[in-house]
Amino acid sequence: MSLPKTARAAVVAEYGKPIEIRELPVPREDELEPGALLVRVDVASICGSDVHQWDGMTQALAPAQLPIVLGHEMCRRKKQYMRTNCERFPYLVGGFAQYCYVFPPSGRVRIPDDVPDGVASAASCALRTVVHAFDRLGRIEPHQRVVIQGAGPLGLFATAMANHAGVSELIVVGAPEQRLALARRWGASSTVSVEELPTAEMRLARVRELTGARGADVVLELSGAPYAFAEGLDFLRPGGRYAVVGQLGGPLTPVQAALFVRKQATVLGVQSADIGQFWKALEFVRRTASRYDFGAMLTTRYPLDRINEAIQSMRAFREIKPLVLPWTER
Amino acid sequence: MSLPKTARAAVVAEYGKPIEIRELPVPREDELEPGALLVRVDVASICGSDVHQWDGMTQALAPAQLPIVLGHEMCRRKKQYMRTNCERFPYLVGGFAQYCYVFPPSGRVRIPDDVPDGVASAASCALRTVVHAFDRLGRIEPHQRVVIQGAGPLGLFATAMANHAGVSELIVVGAPEQRLALARRWGASSTVSVEELPTAEMRLARVRELTGARGADVVLELSGAPYAFAEGLDFLRPGGRYAVVGQLGGPLTPVQAALFVRKQATVLGVQSADIGQFWKALEFVRRTASRYDFGAMLTTRYPLDRINEAIQSMRAFREIKPLVLPWTER
Amino acid sequence: MSLPKTARAAVVAEYGKPIEIRELPVPREDELEPGALLVRVDVASICGSDVHQWDGMTQALAPAQLPIVLGHEMCRRKKQYMRTNCERFPYLVGGFAQYCYVFPPSGRVRIPDDVPDGVASAASCALRTVVHAFDRLGRIEPHQRVVIQGAGPLGLFATAMANHAGVSELIVVGAPEQRLALARRWGASSTVSVEELPTAEMRLARVRELTGARGADVVLELSGAPYAFAEGLDFLRPGGRYAVVGQLGGPLTPVQAALFVRKQATVLGVQSADIGQFWKALEFVRRTASRYDFGAMLTTRYPLDRINEAIQSMRAFREIKPLVLPWTER
Amino acid sequence: MSLPKTARAAVVAEYGKPIEIRELPVPREDELEPGALLVRVDVASICGSDVHQWDGMTQALAPAQLPIVLGHEMCRRKKQYMRTNCERFPYLVGGFAQYCYVFPPSGRVRIPDDVPDGVASAASCALRTVVHAFDRLGRIEPHQRVVIQGAGPLGLFATAMANHAGVSELIVVGAPEQRLALARRWGASSTVSVEELPTAEMRLARVRELTGARGADVVLELSGAPYAFAEGLDFLRPGGRYAVVGQLGGPLTPVQAALFVRKQATVLGVQSADIGQFWKALEFVRRTASRYDFGAMLTTRYPLDRINEAIQSMRAFREIKPLVLPWTER
Repeated sequence: MSLPKTARAAVVAEYGKPIEIRELPVPREDELEPGALLVRVDVASICGSDVHQWDGMTQALAPAQLPIVLGHEMCRRKKQYMRTNCERFPYLVGGFAQYCYVFPPSGRVRIPDDVPDGVASAASCALRTVVHAFDRLGRIEPHQRVVIQGAGPLGLFATAMANHAGVSELIVVGAPEQRLALARRWGASSTVSVEELPTAEMRLARVRELTGARGADVVLELSGAPYAFAEGLDFLRPGGRYAVVGQLGGPLTPVQAALFVRKQATVLGVQSADIGQFWKALEFVRRTASRYDFGAMLTTRYPLDRINEAIQSMRAFREIKPLVLPWTER
Repeated sequence: MSLPKTARAAVVAEYGKPIEIRELPVPREDELEPGALLVRVDVASICGSDVHQWDGMTQALAPAQLPIVLGHEMCRRKKQYMRTNCERFPYLVGGFAQYCYVFPPSGRVRIPDDVPDGVASAASCALRTVVHAFDRLGRIEPHQRVVIQGAGPLGLFATAMANHAGVSELIVVGAPEQRLALARRWGASSTVSVEELPTAEMRLARVRELTGARGADVVLELSGAPYAFAEGLDFLRPGGRYAVVGQLGGPLTPVQAALFVRKQATVLGVQSADIGQFWKALEFVRRTASRYDFGAMLTTRYPLDRINEAIQSMRAFREIKPLVLPWTER
Repeated sequence: MSLPKTARAAVVAEYGKPIEIRELPVPREDELEPGALLVRVDVASICGSDVHQWDGMTQALAPAQLPIVLGHEMCRRKKQYMRTNCERFPYLVGGFAQYCYVFPPSGRVRIPDDVPDGVASAASCALRTVVHAFDRLGRIEPHQRVVIQGAGPLGLFATAMANHAGVSELIVVGAPEQRLALARRWGASSTVSVEELPTAEMRLARVRELTGARGADVVLELSGAPYAFAEGLDFLRPGGRYAVVGQLGGPLTPVQAALFVRKQATVLGVQSADIGQFWKALEFVRRTASRYDFGAMLTTRYPLDRINEAIQSMRAFREIKPLVLPWTER
Repeated sequence: MSLPKTARAAVVAEYGKPIEIRELPVPREDELEPGALLVRVDVASICGSDVHQWDGMTQALAPAQLPIVLGHEMCRRKKQYMRTNCERFPYLVGGFAQYCYVFPPSGRVRIPDDVPDGVASAASCALRTVVHAFDRLGRIEPHQRVVIQGAGPLGLFATAMANHAGVSELIVVGAPEQRLALARRWGASSTVSVEELPTAEMRLARVRELTGARGADVVLELSGAPYAFAEGLDFLRPGGRYAVVGQLGGPLTPVQAALFVRKQATVLGVQSADIGQFWKALEFVRRTASRYDFGAMLTTRYPLDRINEAIQSMRAFREIKPLVLPWTER
């Protein structure tokens, strides 16, 4: 394979300003560290944290030096490798580009033939993080009540996983209706719209009603919404388990510390995942494709040139998980 | 056994006002429910929550109707039973009295002959709660670093238990020096005085230094201090476990919810304990009495008449766990 | 309710000899211990161990004094209680009778209205033991391969539970074909007939083939067959988990002890269950009734008079779990 | 460092025949695979499996092609690396030699300065396997009774670890008296000599007596003795946990499979360990050196020339864990 001298990439030069498509030099083979890969990006997908990578919110957590190439969920079909270095926040070597440099210690997993590119890309960060959350939570029994906070890609993947695990009382809290409808199709027994019930008190009352006044056995926070943490703790029944995944920054949350004690709560923080959990994520979409139309989550396909439009559409909740196609002309 | 018609008891008639010693009627045998016990109280001990039962702080959590008989840690040697209904907050049937009514579903454990009355009484609530916390935390390995927040009875019992379990890096955060000295005698490798380091920042810097900048593998919150929850979360290393025990009420604590995620923390709320854990508490003090002089925690013995003095001395941190003797004249 | 002076019951007077239907005295109310119940038996079901209770095999394990009333799985709809004292082997106070004495410490669970009598009776021992086995095993992930040894009531219930928990590669080893067909209907992806593959070597080869030469992640022994234990250990992949439930006696099994080490196996013995697991069993059949026709397991309904015929039919594997109706005339 | 052309090594050319000291070619630097190491062996130690590597017993489990260089526990102080590829049975690249080739994927751990060479070598296989066993078992509580089968290096290390973890009732079953005396010094509350009590029945009676007729909460099989597996299962109390480590081959053991069920036993196979467990092993000996004189286990130091004598002395149970010094003249 003879590589081009340069490749096109989506570059954030200044937080909150339009992303620029630049021609960047492609590393020559003798510039690769041992164990590194240079992969052609077939398709990439947009993660919520990409938006905050662009608007600068993640800067507070993990300072990065601009400029950076955006993107960390992507898929390379031909060589059948995928990049999984979600941990290396803020992803200085980005996926919204024609080629991507994969660092040596990154794990690689072969994508099963029957998993579509876009779904594999979405599994590379969003789903494998959800897999990790379920691994941390341990067994969920058929009679247990589960609340999922968030109806974005993580919340929807979690809905499918909980449904597949036999949960029959499964409440998804989120918005907009387009996402909640998909949650119901994938197994949510009830959805609670944060648009229709705009206050925490209203939502708590609704969840109490849906869980027989007792609260949820298991709660997963996958929303990233400020204050969602305290709200999820309120949803929990005494003795319940709470996986916290989406809280990446934001303001301090006032919490009643005595609640941990009185509920004897088990609270489990979850961030990213390991390579084995990525393999399990791919196995899950492969085995359950006939039940869950995961492609419905991949709302729009944007050529690289339209990356700004994609980011804005994502911000406005018009998208669930749009794809970025580095090799497609508009 | 012929019972007297009345018995003396320490009664809270109004929050924060002097406790009154009243003569209360002793139930006749035919007034007992099936399975209930009426026990003569040999010795009782004062728990921190008794103080808040008296000053009314616990009222916010678990409303009680005054008047009440104070006290819930006690010991009956002769029949070798102990009361263990700590859960029934706010202990309407109290232990600071000559006789105490024990409800039918309360568990009973035989006190080993070689465990002194006062220690057995202290084990009936304080230590068994600590046993529960260690049960929730699971195994602690010899190389792991443990921080204990609080040097009161729970913190000191936890110090002995962690030391006995082979922990060599064991930091106790609390005050006053009398308690910290006991903590060091029972195995703390370092103590951090909240009097000498009055701010959370100072204490965090000290704990970081003592844990090689990494933080603690395991933290136990046993202090009940407001804001201790957020401070303990800061002490924790990524991947660490945090047992929260002492938070019974108080103001909302501002917490950085993203910390749960970034640290992938495991946070475990613990309240009271079951009867098996009480048995384990008694076994622990019995088996380790030659190493830990648990009696050193039982700072003063007060006759029932001096209960107000005992409560005030407890409030002023002059006591660790004083005893109340219902049958002793001054 | 005025009780009759006597009631009809199935009595084993001598091992292996025909069971006699005798009129036994019904305890008067003043003969009941505090907390005991006297319940009218609406329907009972036959457990494999009832057969061995009759033929005397269980005698080696838990000596009983004849005569005894047979039966320990039963259901009382009206008062909505069920007997659950399966542990009190060999069930001296039996369920194949018009009335049954339930000892005071026995747990009681209310039967949901929409669970049929026969299914509730089967849940009272067979299913709750299976629930216990899954509790011991912990979480089973969607990609994991499960082998179930035995296609009797326990094996079939386990098939439904594993299928409901999202297991897609689920192999049931047993016989006869009638049972294996039901296993496939309830979610087995493959069945291995011990009639068609009569040797352990043949079955091991088949299971290896079905599990990609690797072996099963999880095996459940629910057959009670002699030597099944060693066979199940052979089915297990390195790192796998093995729940052993059905082995109640029989000859010594030669085992390669080094297999535990080389496979780093986790082997979990399971016997009977507690009252909470019985509640979970009833919840399971209630919630999943539209997917699994549990009634198909209840092959025949025998009036009490035909108990000998029922036992013989059970022995000959013509039945899965027949019912006994104490109040029906032939 | 300029390497010699050849190095001396202990070679097994034929099972059970005298080991030969041969001059073998040292790989040149350009012959090393990327990531491999060539280390000078400062000191090595003899593992029980080295004996069976020599007598051919391990051949049945893991066929090896002769000739081989014996040895897999060793220590290289200067570069501070240790070899840990115990898993690569039967250790074709051996440690009883002046230089040893360490394969690329082998983990490396820095030896703490205050851990002596011989102890570090012993930790590289024996102790880290014991660490793995305790990791599998999980928490052991102070009141629990522990039986250790075997008083060889693994049994003695396990005695120290259990004692350090706070176990006060700790029974070691083994021989000869020299080893049992060391076990008592390291914390065994009782020892049971297999020389004095030569039958399983006698030993079971003694363990029953020592455990209040109830059996042990935790048993560790570290003996490698044939039939020790079934004996350990007999030692276990209902609900107990059993780690099986030493069973590497040998004849089929007749087991009562119903015992797993009736005891609801948890049986955990353990083989070798990972690199993190090796780090924990080194931390353990470093932190507890003042309590346990681990050097007492290292009974004799043999120059390489006397390897046959060392193996015979080991076989005759005159040694616990002798050292092999590749650079010392006789």
